[in-house]
Amino acid sequence: MTVVEARVPAAHGKAFRLGTGDKISVINTFGNQVVDTWAFDAKDIHHRLSMELTRRYLLKLRPSVGDILYTNYRNPILTLIGDTSDGMHDTLITACDKATYEKLGCDEHRSCADNLAEALAEFGLSLPFTPGPINLFMNVPISNDMNIELKACEAPAGATVTLRAEIDCYVAFSCCPMDIVPVNGPGGRLSPVDIRIERALA
Amino acid sequence: MTVVEARVPAAHGKAFRLGTGDKISVINTFGNQVVDTWAFDAKDIHHRLSMELTRRYLLKLRPSVGDILYTNYRNPILTLIGDTSDGMHDTLITACDKATYEKLGCDEHRSCADNLAEALAEFGLSLPFTPGPINLFMNVPISNDMNIELKACEAPAGATVTLRAEIDCYVAFSCCPMDIVPVNGPGGRLSPVDIRIERALA
Repeated sequence: MTVVEARVPAAHGKAFRLGTGDKISVINTFGNQVVDTWAFDAKDIHHRLSMELTRRYLLKLRPSVGDILYTNYRNPILTLIGDTSDGMHDTLITACDKATYEKLGCDEHRSCADNLAEALAEFGLSLPFTPGPINLFMNVPISNDMNIELKACEAPAGATVTLRAEIDCYVAFSCCPMDIVPVNGPGGRLSPVDIRIERALA
Repeated sequence: MTVVEARVPAAHGKAFRLGTGDKISVINTFGNQVVDTWAFDAKDIHHRLSMELTRRYLLKLRPSVGDILYTNYRNPILTLIGDTSDGMHDTLITACDKATYEKLGCDEHRSCADNLAEALAEFGLSLPFTPGPINLFMNVPISNDMNIELKACEAPAGATVTLRAEIDCYVAFSCCPMDIVPVNGPGGRLSPVDIRIERALA
């Protein structure tokens, strides 16, 4: 088995090319770090992980271990095969982007949307929009009256989510650079995460 | 005041060009009809109503009267100013499309995604993907354990939602043609809806 290890630097993004059956783990090494996550069919990145579709097929708001995640063309792209966090992940909220920070008074700030664009560009790829991500480790509780909150990430150091590629695909991660609204670590702390890929084919 | 009235035929879609301040009402004339709804900035349709963003700003899963709906660039595009239904609208679920019906064994079937494309084409517009809609009148209850259900629409005949345009925009509606899974009327009944526009400028 071939193992690849990599680090996604704090406030930055990175994409990985996976073959069918490859397993990729996202390790919240220092804890409290939200990781916006996208996936794209390697044959056509307009076939992409879709939260609207995944919610429809799973009939739930948060995937858990064993659940398949679907593309906007209704095909399996990833399966959530491991999760040592408490399972608090968000499928509801947009990625932060340039406009987010402008509204908060920051004209220059990294964003998850830009991190995705940079990560895809490393493979010569681009999209005319930012798809809705699955926000791993993001703490968005939903009350019984259907209100939601954005709270600080509570993922402990070392919490790990593992995904298996169901097709050849790109998976992109962004270590969310939000340090104004408290969604990441205490005091606006931003952390890197570590990636471990187990290749199905040696 | 100028009033425009129109009908969106059963299983079909239609878009309308609104000026800032125009009010558009969707009347569920016969009841039990889901209406997938989108909106686009008239200056650039890549600036579009975004459920991921609207949930983020409203901090709730379903808009109600008085709520502003936002674009993916975080600008107000519509305000929900009237609602005589019970407020059951869905922001979570993708529009049905060709792939939906193929998975259900129907190779030829109208879809909300195609209805949007046809409606935009009437204005010479197109998009490379189908944005997540707000599904007016769609009955998607959410349980306390975050599971969701797709249930038959319970909107009574005449239930009306009214939206005000906050910018010059296109609003597109699709009378959902789903007659296999019971999300519309009893026995797969599909109905038209009626549209009433009150122009802010005579």
